[in-house]
Amino acid sequence: MLGLMQSQPLLISSLIDFAERHHGDAEVVSRRVEGDLHRYTYRDVAARSRQVANALDALKLGFSDRVATLAWNGYRHLELYFGVSGSGRVLHTVNPRLHPDQIAWIANHAEDQVMCFDLTFLPIIQAVHAKCTTIKHWIAMCDADRLPADSGIPKLTSYETWVGAQPDTYAWPSFDENSASSMCYTSGTTGNPKAALYSHRSTILHAYAAALPDVMCLSARDSILPVVPMFHVNAWGIPYSAALTGAKLVFPGPALDGKSVYELIEAEKVSYAAGVPTVWQMLLGHMKPDNLRFTTLKRTVIGGSACPPAMITAFNDDYGVEVLHAWGMTEMSPLGTLCTLKNKHLEMTADEKMKIRLKQGRAIYGVDMKIVGDDGQELPWDGKAFGDLYVRGPWIVREYFKGEGGDPLVDGWFPTGDVATIDADGYMQITDRSKDVIKSGGEWISSIDIENIAVAHPAVAMAACIGVPHPKWDERPIVAIVRKPGMDVTREELLAFYQGKTVAKWQVPDDIVFVDAIPLGATGKILKTRLREILKDYKLPAA
Amino acid sequence: MLGLMQSQPLLISSLIDFAERHHGDAEVVSRRVEGDLHRYTYRDVAARSRQVANALDALKLGFSDRVATLAWNGYRHLELYFGVSGSGRVLHTVNPRLHPDQIAWIANHAEDQVMCFDLTFLPIIQAVHAKCTTIKHWIAMCDADRLPADSGIPKLTSYETWVGAQPDTYAWPSFDENSASSMCYTSGTTGNPKAALYSHRSTILHAYAAALPDVMCLSARDSILPVVPMFHVNAWGIPYSAALTGAKLVFPGPALDGKSVYELIEAEKVSYAAGVPTVWQMLLGHMKPDNLRFTTLKRTVIGGSACPPAMITAFNDDYGVEVLHAWGMTEMSPLGTLCTLKNKHLEMTADEKMKIRLKQGRAIYGVDMKIVGDDGQELPWDGKAFGDLYVRGPWIVREYFKGEGGDPLVDGWFPTGDVATIDADGYMQITDRSKDVIKSGGEWISSIDIENIAVAHPAVAMAACIGVPHPKWDERPIVAIVRKPGMDVTREELLAFYQGKTVAKWQVPDDIVFVDAIPLGATGKILKTRLREILKDYKLPAA
Repeated sequence: MLGLMQSQPLLISSLIDFAERHHGDAEVVSRRVEGDLHRYTYRDVAARSRQVANALDALKLGFSDRVATLAWNGYRHLELYFGVSGSGRVLHTVNPRLHPDQIAWIANHAEDQVMCFDLTFLPIIQAVHAKCTTIKHWIAMCDADRLPADSGIPKLTSYETWVGAQPDTYAWPSFDENSASSMCYTSGTTGNPKAALYSHRSTILHAYAAALPDVMCLSARDSILPVVPMFHVNAWGIPYSAALTGAKLVFPGPALDGKSVYELIEAEKVSYAAGVPTVWQMLLGHMKPDNLRFTTLKRTVIGGSACPPAMITAFNDDYGVEVLHAWGMTEMSPLGTLCTLKNKHLEMTADEKMKIRLKQGRAIYGVDMKIVGDDGQELPWDGKAFGDLYVRGPWIVREYFKGEGGDPLVDGWFPTGDVATIDADGYMQITDRSKDVIKSGGEWISSIDIENIAVAHPAVAMAACIGVPHPKWDERPIVAIVRKPGMDVTREELLAFYQGKTVAKWQVPDDIVFVDAIPLGATGKILKTRLREILKDYKLPAA
Repeated sequence: MLGLMQSQPLLISSLIDFAERHHGDAEVVSRRVEGDLHRYTYRDVAARSRQVANALDALKLGFSDRVATLAWNGYRHLELYFGVSGSGRVLHTVNPRLHPDQIAWIANHAEDQVMCFDLTFLPIIQAVHAKCTTIKHWIAMCDADRLPADSGIPKLTSYETWVGAQPDTYAWPSFDENSASSMCYTSGTTGNPKAALYSHRSTILHAYAAALPDVMCLSARDSILPVVPMFHVNAWGIPYSAALTGAKLVFPGPALDGKSVYELIEAEKVSYAAGVPTVWQMLLGHMKPDNLRFTTLKRTVIGGSACPPAMITAFNDDYGVEVLHAWGMTEMSPLGTLCTLKNKHLEMTADEKMKIRLKQGRAIYGVDMKIVGDDGQELPWDGKAFGDLYVRGPWIVREYFKGEGGDPLVDGWFPTGDVATIDADGYMQITDRSKDVIKSGGEWISSIDIENIAVAHPAVAMAACIGVPHPKWDERPIVAIVRKPGMDVTREELLAFYQGKTVAKWQVPDDIVFVDAIPLGATGKILKTRLREILKDYKLPAA
């Protein structure tokens, strides 16, 4: 027997309808590529999203046709989020940090028909447009008078000209909530990129979950700064959750340096910010010399990479900002776990709480997880056993776009490629990427533990630990180090720095290698495959 | 094109699975009918819910078969919530405050096969069991040694005997998320009761929404006291949202007096409580004489009836507890609106904020609402125009069980029977039940406004405003008043009390009628139909 409740599909258009109707005058503030601050409301976002939908109709785009963006976090990008998906097309957010060849490859693979890009990325578009065989329409996300005269891009139109002529009324269509809404390619280090194809249903469920008090805790009282890019897993779903809650949105545009981000936080009374560690490092680096303070910032969620403990401590102790560790991936929409405390932890000391905060956190309802050993058997949740992390849930991929890579699931579970422990309270901690695990004398060493100790040294800007072959132990860890500008530290000082830290003697790296830079991928993560190539002729010092 | 995310149905069983796995040792504390406090964990809830499922299998109950409960808020009731719905049966929570004839009527209408009841309600069961033609199994929710010897109920079994013999392993079935999960009859004042039939999907979506920061704001750090009964619209969905967040649950059982509730709040460090105004009146009544204070209580949601402003003020100003006004109904699972502030309100004065808090609040994402005039046209959101309130959304009924009452929807919208205003910020305020509106000289008078002023008088315990026929003005308002014990106030004093209040001169009631009691319905709401019957011979004083 079925229940007798109303059968409304979960559609992204309902988010912007809701924000317009119930939070019409809540603000959306954007730092533009043009440099100035743009300020309008959800009422305007809604009206212009409908203009986008009409503009797509005018281009004769069909249901599920792909519309690509190559853009910063800003109001026009937001309008495309709602206008493209709301009208039944698929939003393909492209990461501008990918190699141009890869951008052309994924545009062709996705069969994008429209490309909307910020002028920052005109050089990329100029480099790739001839190779993009499916894109028929090139839209520069700028005012009409900023459109470059001799771009070389066929029929290049400014976004304002494109949507400006359209009416702002539009009846959002109703359709199967499992329809594709948007897509994001993972910047795989091997093989071709593969795309997660999100649905309206998965997006709405994720938007509810992401706003929960134990996740990002978003309300109509918040002013939210998503530093995490809209071109990377939908800025962790913040544009959707913000509309769902009516929160004020503050977009940083291309200005991600410490000074710009700090000034935006203060000027727009930001209460909540989300981003990756590298951006927060720049922010704290800007604030420290002048002893600057936050007036309104209360919480920040840090994800994308494991957050160095020193950063969590700095935010908490020096600035009174609660740092929430998050973990997820492109294939997970992206949120999987968040590190918030439980009722039983409330009376713990600050030190005890910090130990928990260093973990990636607890699963959000909707996400199920487990760790398995080499034999495929589930491992205990004791905080010690570590194994491959598997997840499942309604906002986790079943397969990739066009079936690339075959069936990724193992008995219905998605293998994350991360190696983790889970403690008895369900707090998960990533110890490594599975391909980065170092196996020494039959025991695994966490490269993340080794790196966290190194970056706690005041002279270290960045650290990356890899395993190198060893005749007796199979592998031994070494650490590639980038020193901070003007700072000096020796190999011996760094090795000595490991003494007394929470690492066993046999886990201490065998060597320190100073490098000028550590290769980073398109989403800011360390590319260890590339680092291993660079150091392929490296030899361990004789024992 | 469909998205490529995992297609997991939204099922209630996944809530208790999640709570067991991720919050296994979070506590569930219950005041038992036996008088003592019972204390266990979500791990135990999950194991015993599976025992319930096995026990239902042993009774050969089929998919969608109905299992009734007549019970207080407590741990066994919680196990039935998950065991009954999780195994694919339908939980029918029966309101023990209904007339026994009505209880028999709805048990037959629902075709209940099992009835689980607290011993408090044994007399009701004894009165009705012979009339309940479909119930084959009677379960007393008590320890085996408390089972009454000569109850007269055929084959009466204790809950502990019933589930105790069953294994605590059970593979929850997977099925269509639109399947019926639970049902609740509305205690209609006219005609037979009609049942809302909830689905797994509607329950899970409501559980996500109910936990949002702008709704009940539930997290793993909360200790939640649902005073609102589990026999009435699933205690506002708190059992589900608590499992979704891993919050500690504290059940008051039958002890709803001020002293018991106060002591439970303090002993179990309750941070959040939900209930109807009458219970909070008793709580504040208990605390005031001894100048008692809350140690941990931070928030309370008040719904069910419009909350008297004096109570909101008392909680806020005297006890430092944030009062959130809520509105909903059985047909809405039940949450529709909650009154939380927006970012733009943060810098308002306390008085300005209080003006907002008096409203029933903003729509939760998932609920759409509108007000319409007599001509069926939508009215403006100006905070002044009032009309019939309509709602729609995925946790709102499409029709009633067995099609009772025909198609309730009007163009896809559910008419709530409430009359309301909505302001430009989307804050809705109930001015009346549509059938209680008083129309005087062509203008509507809000009976709720008139009542709120009366109950602000220190000698008034309860007030109910109704319209009585008037030769010139069609109708004029009068107020039935119950005085507080030992307090005195005259008709003239009360009429004078309206002077200077926020009510127009022509809206001031024509008369005060002192009564010993005001008739209340099964959910504690004033039965104005009954009051009108009682006062049918009343004559307005000569002008």
